[in-house]
Amino acid sequence: MSDLSERYRAYLAALNERRLDDLVEYVQDELTYNGAALTRPEYQAMLAGDVEAIPDLFFDARIIVATEDRIACRILFDCKPEKEFLGFTPDGGRFLFAEHVFYRFVGGRIAAVDSLIDRHAIAEQLQARRS
Amino acid sequence: MSDLSERYRAYLAALNERRLDDLVEYVQDELTYNGAALTRPEYQAMLAGDVEAIPDLFFDARIIVATEDRIACRILFDCKPEKEFLGFTPDGGRFLFAEHVFYRFVGGRIAAVDSLIDRHAIAEQLQARRS
Repeated sequence: MSDLSERYRAYLAALNERRLDDLVEYVQDELTYNGAALTRPEYQAMLAGDVEAIPDLFFDARIIVATEDRIACRILFDCKPEKEFLGFTPDGGRFLFAEHVFYRFVGGRIAAVDSLIDRHAIAEQLQARRS
Repeated sequence: MSDLSERYRAYLAALNERRLDDLVEYVQDELTYNGAALTRPEYQAMLAGDVEAIPDLFFDARIIVATEDRIACRILFDCKPEKEFLGFTPDGGRFLFAEHVFYRFVGGRIAAVDSLIDRHAIAEQLQARRS
């Protein structure tokens, strides 16, 4: 049975190439994001907001664990936010941080996302540059 | 080819039943933890410290994504820390938070751990009870 890794890499490529309208191929009409119900347009708007705040946002998948209906991914970000993001006010510098995220797919499209972003690393980098 | 999920569940059972000496069965002599080199005794001491700070610590695996050499797990904790943990000073209350963790196994034993713990959730729960 084939796993979802190639499909997931195609999803990340769509994000990295800013083809957000292609999300219809990879995301269910309705999904949950950290337990909250979202429509795909709402999910797309959330990602569009991330990219607006962080124009050089690049999803760099470092570990992908894939089965037939699940993906877990460790993603590294090395980016320069230009607007407020995750409640942080950018200071003009770069940030290096990880996201550890789980996806459940139904019919080849994402139905549930459980994401943890390393806000602690972001806070520490801001703090280190302030002092 | 069989995946590691049963083996990983046995590892978590050893942690939950405080059979930390059994880690020799599940963990390599040397491993990396969030990029830092550790010996298994150092890893075991770290876990013993966690359990000392949080006597009711229970690893509740909610999502396991398993292949032949990788595990990714979303673990929920619902616990009452009694000593300082992760830099937080307990306030006598319970905390509910997640860990998203990736493991690489070699020869059936853990060789690398990449863990993210939702410190933001812990900080928010502390803050909400303070105000």
